[in-house]
Amino acid sequence: MTTDLSPNLALNQMVDRRRADGESLVHLAFGEARLPLLPELARQLAAGARRTAYGPVAGAESARAAVAGYFGRRRLPTDADQIVLAPGSKALLMALQLAVPGDVLLPRPAWNSYAAQVRYAGKEVIGVPIPDACGGVPEPGALRRAVHAARARGRDPRLLVLTLPDNPTGTLAPPSLVREVCAVAEAEDLLVVSDEIYRDLVHDPAATPFLSPAEVVPDRTVVTSGLSKSLGLGGWRIGVARFPEGDRGRWLRDSVVSVAGEVWSTLAGPMQHVVEHVYAEPPEIRERLAAGTRLHGAVARAVHDVVTRSGARCRPPTGGFYVYPDFEPVRGLLAGNGIGDSAELGRRLLDDSGVVVLPGHLLGDDVRGLRFKAATSLLYGDEDQQREALAADDPVRLPHLAAALTRMEEAFTGLTTRR
Amino acid sequence: MTTDLSPNLALNQMVDRRRADGESLVHLAFGEARLPLLPELARQLAAGARRTAYGPVAGAESARAAVAGYFGRRRLPTDADQIVLAPGSKALLMALQLAVPGDVLLPRPAWNSYAAQVRYAGKEVIGVPIPDACGGVPEPGALRRAVHAARARGRDPRLLVLTLPDNPTGTLAPPSLVREVCAVAEAEDLLVVSDEIYRDLVHDPAATPFLSPAEVVPDRTVVTSGLSKSLGLGGWRIGVARFPEGDRGRWLRDSVVSVAGEVWSTLAGPMQHVVEHVYAEPPEIRERLAAGTRLHGAVARAVHDVVTRSGARCRPPTGGFYVYPDFEPVRGLLAGNGIGDSAELGRRLLDDSGVVVLPGHLLGDDVRGLRFKAATSLLYGDEDQQREALAADDPVRLPHLAAALTRMEEAFTGLTTRR
Repeated sequence: MTTDLSPNLALNQMVDRRRADGESLVHLAFGEARLPLLPELARQLAAGARRTAYGPVAGAESARAAVAGYFGRRRLPTDADQIVLAPGSKALLMALQLAVPGDVLLPRPAWNSYAAQVRYAGKEVIGVPIPDACGGVPEPGALRRAVHAARARGRDPRLLVLTLPDNPTGTLAPPSLVREVCAVAEAEDLLVVSDEIYRDLVHDPAATPFLSPAEVVPDRTVVTSGLSKSLGLGGWRIGVARFPEGDRGRWLRDSVVSVAGEVWSTLAGPMQHVVEHVYAEPPEIRERLAAGTRLHGAVARAVHDVVTRSGARCRPPTGGFYVYPDFEPVRGLLAGNGIGDSAELGRRLLDDSGVVVLPGHLLGDDVRGLRFKAATSLLYGDEDQQREALAADDPVRLPHLAAALTRMEEAFTGLTTRR
Repeated sequence: MTTDLSPNLALNQMVDRRRADGESLVHLAFGEARLPLLPELARQLAAGARRTAYGPVAGAESARAAVAGYFGRRRLPTDADQIVLAPGSKALLMALQLAVPGDVLLPRPAWNSYAAQVRYAGKEVIGVPIPDACGGVPEPGALRRAVHAARARGRDPRLLVLTLPDNPTGTLAPPSLVREVCAVAEAEDLLVVSDEIYRDLVHDPAATPFLSPAEVVPDRTVVTSGLSKSLGLGGWRIGVARFPEGDRGRWLRDSVVSVAGEVWSTLAGPMQHVVEHVYAEPPEIRERLAAGTRLHGAVARAVHDVVTRSGARCRPPTGGFYVYPDFEPVRGLLAGNGIGDSAELGRRLLDDSGVVVLPGHLLGDDVRGLRFKAATSLLYGDEDQQREALAADDPVRLPHLAAALTRMEEAFTGLTTRR
């Protein structure tokens, strides 16, 4: 059993401590959306205070109906009974790991908590490389080979976790690739867990259309989502899951609700009141989503430009607020500065430049790679600066954002500059 | 893997459905405190809305300091670093099961979720009978024998869960017994998890003094608590844990925080704001606790009178809002009505009288026993009636409570009346 704190959370706490000690850090290692609270949401929370009773484990029917409507408007007709609420989608992902037997296939790299959850559930992680073009899904051929290899050595791979759009690469698998991966899931009888918490943060939906595995293999896909990323409500802990229709879907939902009943009982009542409001998608919610996505896209693209100018290759970000650069093209130059793996890469960025990133090996990637995740949303600044950035036509020209980008560029180019 | 909903939650949902269909039920199978929301708590929740960031996994320092102060006023000097917050103490209990290896000793009967959590964590439940005088702790001699017997067959018992005061028996183990049980824990190197969520609901603290295992074996006791029971805030999902000082305590806390980081991240920020207020124990909180405890005691004692008049034996309740009658003295009469075990006992109370109880076998007790748990707080009625009951000198004489007690007495005496 490990006593390590989830590495992203540990880094975040380290940054808080060092900043409290007066250090100036550029923190890019924590996936928090950093957007100001919408005043209407504070009113909704207050109005939900009277919900002090436990209520149904899956959540109140009215709140589940609102979430069902949300999915219905996204080509996924959904009944309220297919929805389960929880204090964060993380809790639902853990419940799925506890409820469904079998080993778990993960894209490599993937969000760090998937693997930790699999291990707490006493199962094995089987990492599968991602394609060159995007992350969040394994390369289909490698996926099939990984399933067969695992079975050949006596393991029982049963779950496949996808992230659409992806954390850490900030990219969205195109529909053709989603279909290929779903075909493997069908052929190999895998349950697909599609983490779509960044779904509403696709930067340009016309250019990068979204296809959910729940549209392709509806009977074997559970979708998870929540409000932490889209509305910057990480601290409110609101997650949702959508289960398949039919017998298998009901069994999955009942299994997850059983775990929920023994672990967290239900999503807090006042938060269920917020769910009812937000998932009905009134105009102010849609406007905030649009403004947030515009900002995320602009800053992620600017950081992408910074890392590529520094010599890294990097998939262009198309959703969410991450980039995942790979400094392999300048390995020789980094080696000249004593940097040969992702652990050292992260350490040196912190020590030399006060830039905090999440090294790739903490996301399941090969430690010999020269890759890291940078959460670009952490650059938005304090609450006033966030408002300014949301409203700006060209947010990356705002002084605080421009300064942070300059400091990052100095840090990254410093990696390859002979000292 | 089971798909059964936690039995108390399942019964609660069944009752909601049948009541919605117009049926009149006396629901005694759900441990909800049923007290009106204090207006100040609604204000605190609203004031906490701005806490939208994830923040530290264990909870904000200010909130943990308030909880540390609460324990300090209860003979347990505590540093804020010893405290972890969570969405319910249930989540903390589950994290302990996942974080600490080894099989788990439970009093028999015990709250149903303990055993379910142990099984989800892939470990074994070892039930140990409770003494005649009270529940919540195993009989010390039986505990020692159970540990040795488990080791002899290759198991590795490491955790002992105690409930002080107890759910389901509504009794509090006296200090002498707590010391005896702690001596076994010390001798057998067991970690004690002391669930003290009913601690502030001891009916007469002068007559039944409270001793925490954390006072007796401080280095090996984790205390869990929360606001669901004491303030009727089950739907707000607020739990706390207090870890030992020193290296072992830090290891335990770090292990639980690691699980927390991978499962629920943190207690929702607005709820942490509530924690800060409540655990400082301002006058209105202390007054509500006193009024609630007076009501719980009066109604639990009245139900105790009802069940003993019906022929059951029953430990007199001294804390919380439960009674756990045993109809063994009238087994012959019940057998004459076709009732020979706790499953049938529960079924017949529902079918014949519309009285819903939680049969003992769902709490780990022997199904051949004629025992059940009744949560007496469910009798308080609607919100206006709850206010009336809190203010009343003699709440059991209020018409709605008197009527419920009469109906219960008819139901219980009906069990033994030849038909």
